[in-house]
Amino acid sequence: MAEQQQLPKAKAKVADIHTHMYPPEYVKVLESRNTIPLVRKFPTASDPRLVLLEAEVPLLESAQQDPSLLPGRPLTKHFSSLDQKIHFMDTHSIDISVISLANPWLDFLPSDQAAPSATSINSSFSSMCATHPGRLYFFAALPLTAPPSDLLASITSIASLPYCRGVILGTSGLGSGLDDPALLPIFTALAEANLPIFLHPHYGLPNSVFGPRSAAGEYGHVLPLALGFPMETTIAVARMFLAGVFDAVPKLSMILAHSGGTLPFLAGRIESCIVHDGALVKRMKEGGKRRSLWEVLRSQVYLDAVIYGEVGLKAAVEASGSSDRLMFGTDHPFFPPVGGEKGEEDGEWESVGLNVKAVVKAMGDGVEYEGVMGGMRSGF
Amino acid sequence: MAEQQQLPKAKAKVADIHTHMYPPEYVKVLESRNTIPLVRKFPTASDPRLVLLEAEVPLLESAQQDPSLLPGRPLTKHFSSLDQKIHFMDTHSIDISVISLANPWLDFLPSDQAAPSATSINSSFSSMCATHPGRLYFFAALPLTAPPSDLLASITSIASLPYCRGVILGTSGLGSGLDDPALLPIFTALAEANLPIFLHPHYGLPNSVFGPRSAAGEYGHVLPLALGFPMETTIAVARMFLAGVFDAVPKLSMILAHSGGTLPFLAGRIESCIVHDGALVKRMKEGGKRRSLWEVLRSQVYLDAVIYGEVGLKAAVEASGSSDRLMFGTDHPFFPPVGGEKGEEDGEWESVGLNVKAVVKAMGDGVEYEGVMGGMRSGF
Repeated sequence: MAEQQQLPKAKAKVADIHTHMYPPEYVKVLESRNTIPLVRKFPTASDPRLVLLEAEVPLLESAQQDPSLLPGRPLTKHFSSLDQKIHFMDTHSIDISVISLANPWLDFLPSDQAAPSATSINSSFSSMCATHPGRLYFFAALPLTAPPSDLLASITSIASLPYCRGVILGTSGLGSGLDDPALLPIFTALAEANLPIFLHPHYGLPNSVFGPRSAAGEYGHVLPLALGFPMETTIAVARMFLAGVFDAVPKLSMILAHSGGTLPFLAGRIESCIVHDGALVKRMKEGGKRRSLWEVLRSQVYLDAVIYGEVGLKAAVEASGSSDRLMFGTDHPFFPPVGGEKGEEDGEWESVGLNVKAVVKAMGDGVEYEGVMGGMRSGF
Repeated sequence: MAEQQQLPKAKAKVADIHTHMYPPEYVKVLESRNTIPLVRKFPTASDPRLVLLEAEVPLLESAQQDPSLLPGRPLTKHFSSLDQKIHFMDTHSIDISVISLANPWLDFLPSDQAAPSATSINSSFSSMCATHPGRLYFFAALPLTAPPSDLLASITSIASLPYCRGVILGTSGLGSGLDDPALLPIFTALAEANLPIFLHPHYGLPNSVFGPRSAAGEYGHVLPLALGFPMETTIAVARMFLAGVFDAVPKLSMILAHSGGTLPFLAGRIESCIVHDGALVKRMKEGGKRRSLWEVLRSQVYLDAVIYGEVGLKAAVEASGSSDRLMFGTDHPFFPPVGGEKGEEDGEWESVGLNVKAVVKAMGDGVEYEGVMGGMRSGF
């Protein structure tokens, strides 16, 4: 289970596009909360617990009776220590990391706290990057709940931060999803500022779809994480596509977490359902030429390579039209080794090895491997 | 949009594993209903309308005010005429069709009506097949809401029907999904009777996940059909896998609609989430050796080739380990041409062409193409 994987030595640089950090300001906010997302200490555990998902709430409640039932995951030094991030990078021969705040970012903040929090967190990320020039860049957090003018102002200020390479975004947008017309000025401002969006899931699907045995904890958190997350991403991007966001903001550039959720596999079915929907076809005939989802995937979308298998990775590359649009990632500090041996988390992570192995199997170990691993983007 | 596709001439036989029929008994039941699924006539349309999906209910209600707003789809002769099925097969050079009742089958029937309805419908399918020996086979409908002993008895009688090649099943099972332990005797009886399950979606995902613009009809029915359906299948099979159904019934054989929903793409992530879930890993260590989802896909699962694109089809073949596990299908009579020209439905269907083209692009036109198209199974 905890079999160690050898990371092949890449000749060019290796960049990790999907790697999270919790700056101290953010941990403080989470510690102060009573509803998810939150950080809570339990007498039976040395590390505080980070509780993020709706599916983890039942255990959060029962842990008050039985403190040996711990909800969520331990908030280890991997979440907030920059030294640990650098150690993780060195251990896995990662030259460059583009760090980002993890889900659910600032989605839950009251309107008046959002902009100051974003400023403070983004400035904290900037300072971290400055301590390791050339090794660290970051995706900034957006104050989505702030008044629209503050949100637009924050994009201008984010764009001037020297190590910022884009923004990280969830699927809720301003509360009505990413096909909300009210988001178009935000997408336009991001595109104009040359800030790609790293789209990341958090909300998953309603727990009911996973059935009673999943709700009772029989399957751990496999279904919300393995299926809910990628399905959420897929639905969000399909909604943007159907709403015409990519046509309205042709300079918008997106990087999709987990190799696009499952867009590469379902793009054919989405296209077929569009051309076989009487109402849509009628409307499209009036609207003139339409770009297909394939065209959008090959011009405005990049995918990370966090897919843990060569079957999915190959489909992601083919849907993207080129391995240049795929970007290696680790999802650190999530999915640590679970062997339970002391110090295991300081060594090589199986979750990283699975993704590296998938790149090697799907791409070989030549120039395409280097490309996905980040070699082509070493000038970050 | 309605561009016609040439079906390459296969040297071996072509079999359609995914093709639906509505025998007269079933249409009668649907006509008698006031809630979905139902068949209703409207003064503004020559064909009655077939209304199946939760997403179609708003239009069903508003059509009472404005009968030009028609819900669902026309129940054309393609749904219930055997001559039309044979004509469709001849038009597309399909030698063999394994016909099945369309969703939601008998899921909605009161307990006392289920077994007699199933008997009558399956006998109707048998008679249809007998009129075209060697060209038609069928997947039987199961009376899932019948008392357990009647359900088991129906499996015995289904197994003796000469043209029956398995059963079609939705994801609701006995009401709690396919990971319900109460289904194990049913799965065992099906496996013992050598009846594979053709698993087909119907319930999709809660409409809320597609957002307000989809609910308002802006995207037609694209999201429930293109994403809700395959995601439902994926979740159902993942739940069966996590519940250990495939290990408990090792002779169980399943054919998954729409190339497995999106299992081929997400199998890697599912496996990784399992080996990184502390609670599951602890339990698995006690349980001994575990078969991976890949192993199950390559031994107990077949996929249809209804995926409308070569990217998905290649992933489906690779996840299955061999093109022998893929089976061509059309989904007739759904997804007819929408060009609106008179008689267009009697010609070649673009939806069929998209799937044939995907097989050719993914497999070439040699022995693997013949295999997926049904050549290897011509002795059906």
